[in-house]
Parts: sequence; structure tokens; C-alpha cells
Amino acid sequence: MRLRNVKDAKNILKNSSYYIDEPEALKTHWGEEFENSNPIKLEIGMGKGDFIIGMAKLHPEWNFIGVEKYESVLVRGVQKLELEDLPNVRVICVDAKEISKYFSREVEEVYLNFSDPWPKKRHHKRRLTYEDFLKEYDKIFKDRAHIEMKTDNDSLFEGTLVYLNNYGYVFDEVILDLWSSEKENVKTEYEVKFSELGFKIKYIDAHKDL
Amino acid sequence: MRLRNVKDAKNILKNSSYYIDEPEALKTHWGEEFENSNPIKLEIGMGKGDFIIGMAKLHPEWNFIGVEKYESVLVRGVQKLELEDLPNVRVICVDAKEISKYFSREVEEVYLNFSDPWPKKRHHKRRLTYEDFLKEYDKIFKDRAHIEMKTDNDSLFEGTLVYLNNYGYVFDEVILDLWSSEKENVKTEYEVKFSELGFKIKYIDAHKDL
Repeated sequence: MRLRNVKDAKNILKNSSYYIDEPEALKTHWGEEFENSNPIKLEIGMGKGDFIIGMAKLHPEWNFIGVEKYESVLVRGVQKLELEDLPNVRVICVDAKEISKYFSREVEEVYLNFSDPWPKKRHHKRRLTYEDFLKEYDKIFKDRAHIEMKTDNDSLFEGTLVYLNNYGYVFDEVILDLWSSEKENVKTEYEVKFSELGFKIKYIDAHKDL
Repeated sequence: MRLRNVKDAKNILKNSSYYIDEPEALKTHWGEEFENSNPIKLEIGMGKGDFIIGMAKLHPEWNFIGVEKYESVLVRGVQKLELEDLPNVRVICVDAKEISKYFSREVEEVYLNFSDPWPKKRHHKRRLTYEDFLKEYDKIFKDRAHIEMKTDNDSLFEGTLVYLNNYGYVFDEVILDLWSSEKENVKTEYEVKFSELGFKIKYIDAHKDL
């Protein structure tokens, strides 16, 4: 996603009740923030927020935390969230490679939607499904790692199948053309655009007991 | 592949030096048949033989055994083989689900090319990569199971990724569009036809230590 400078991004975030400015303070007690003990699910790389908003409406029984590295992107998501009333959503602006600074054994699932494919071989280690990231995610999952990912990018999909498999993830489902399947699917803005251009949306659902 | 009646199929097979009529007699000593101790690789479902002939030419340092269930199909392969001089090839007419009747801890690799996709859910267990078959293959591999498969069929590919992963196979490579990759690839007649129709050839290379 191309970044744009967003004036006063920081102020918009700080004025939103969806935004958590100091997520490290909530580590191990995110349930208190939501005032319930519902499952906590993260979307890492939430972008403009369509997925998390759609999911939060479909599943009020789950708590969602949107993780986004860039303030200038996150602010777009927050502007959309402000049009909704979703007590089960929060967002944080942090880097996935340090996600265990903010969570410890309390997350039930991670969604990875249209992550940066990092096409060059020497950049593959920056992919959000690369081994170093999977190791980091192990620290935040409760007792079972669970990742659902979708992408339109063949190379990221091929790589992710290998990374997850080699790291011991068990595949529950693999779909090469999600839009042609009967799977429930909350679409992102990016997904609609690229699917309409003819790109097939590919999907993996995998878990690992910890 | 559609079956046709082939007159005198049995005689054509029996008159070919490529054809082994009683493969159970060679169990545990296939090396003697080849008069060497080179690695033994099976193609299960060899069809008309293009793959095994191409591979045997490329790799004279490996022995290849083509496995085909139907005489009427195998005879086409044998007719092609008879035009070649390939001391490192044999063919047998047996059912993959009983492959351990003919081999024991002596196979290094199994190739599965364009296996029947068995599209209906209730028939998935007939797929050559379904768990029951993987169990059977375990008995014939030396000390490391190794499968390379290719298919144009999405559903078989999706299923196979799940079956292999769930059975403990480690993925070495997954490719969604083999023809666009730089991978060495001996093409089958079926493959050329379907690739030219626009179907992407998908590929998995996976192993499991036994």
C-alpha cells in the first residue's frame, strides 16, 4: 500500500477511542481493556480496516486488535472505524517483528491479509510468514498458534506454504481461488480491486499446538 | 485418461523387455534386475510414458520403474519405449494401493504426474496422495519418503498440500505455475495439452524422514 503523508495523523489516532497509544501497558491483560474474556484475534497489517470492521460486525463474540506499522495507513482505518460503534475493536501502531512486546500467551488467532509479498529473494525474510515472524508469534498465542492468511501473490503464497509447513504448522485448509469457494470471506478493499483485475485470491488456514 | 481396448495388449507387454510380468518376484532385489545399485524412482500412473522416457534419458544414473494400473494404457507407453534404448527403465502393471507387494525399503522417490483428481468429496480417498496411499508408500521407501507431484487440477493440489502436510511431509518447494518457473521439467503429453489450454501446472516437492 502506498503511503501518503496524513496531516495530524498522530492527533487523529490519539483522539480515537479505538486507538491504544501504549499497548505495552496492556500486555497480559487485554481482557480488561475489552471488559470481557472473549477470544482475542489480531490482524497484522490491518491497512484501511475493511477486514477488521467486517469481522467485528460478524463476530461480536470475538475481540479484534488491528496491528499496523504505519500511522499514515492506520489513520485511514481509524477514520473508517469512527463511523462505526464496535466495542470489540482496538488498533495499535507497532511493528510485527516486536509483537511479543505487547502480547503474551493471550492471542487465539492471527490474520494476515495481503501482506507485502517482498518479491526479491533477499527480502523474503521480511515476509510476515517467514520463520523469524512465526517464532515471534509463538510467544503471543495462548496454547495453540492459529494463522489464516490470504494473498493474491503467487510467490508469497508458495513461500508461506513452505514456511508454515517447515515450522510445524498443520494445514486445515488451502484454497487456490477463495472467491469461487463457499468459504465465508470478509473482503478487503485491496482484495476486491485485485480480484476484479483477474487475480485469484489464495487462502491458508493452519494451526500448531504449542 | 480414457481407456481404449487394445488388441493383444497382454502380448505386446509380454514381448517387451521393459515389462516385468511378475514384479513380486523382484521385491527387495530390484537392483539385480538393473544390474546396478543406482537409486530407484517410481512413476505411479505413468500413462503414455513421456515423463519416464524423458527422465530416463536425462538421468541415466537413476533407475526408473513406471507403474500403471491399466494394461491398455501401459501398452501405449511400452510402444513408445520400444523406440528407445533405455536400460534404466522397467514398467509394471499393478495397483498403487498394493505397491508394497512389489517393493520394500528400496525406492528413493515417487513421481505423481497428473493423477486422477477424483473431484467428488466422497472419492477423495482414491486420490494417490490420500493418507492411505501415503501409508502404503512409507513401506517402499528406503529411509526417506520423497514425492514430487504435478497437476493442473486445483482441488487435487489443495487436497495434496493438506494430505502431505498432515502426514508429516516437509515441503521443499511449492510452485503454482511450473512453466513460468526455472525448474527443470520433463513434460507429459497431457501436460502440454492442458498447459496450452491455459491451465497452470502446479508442483510440490516434499520429503519425510522415516
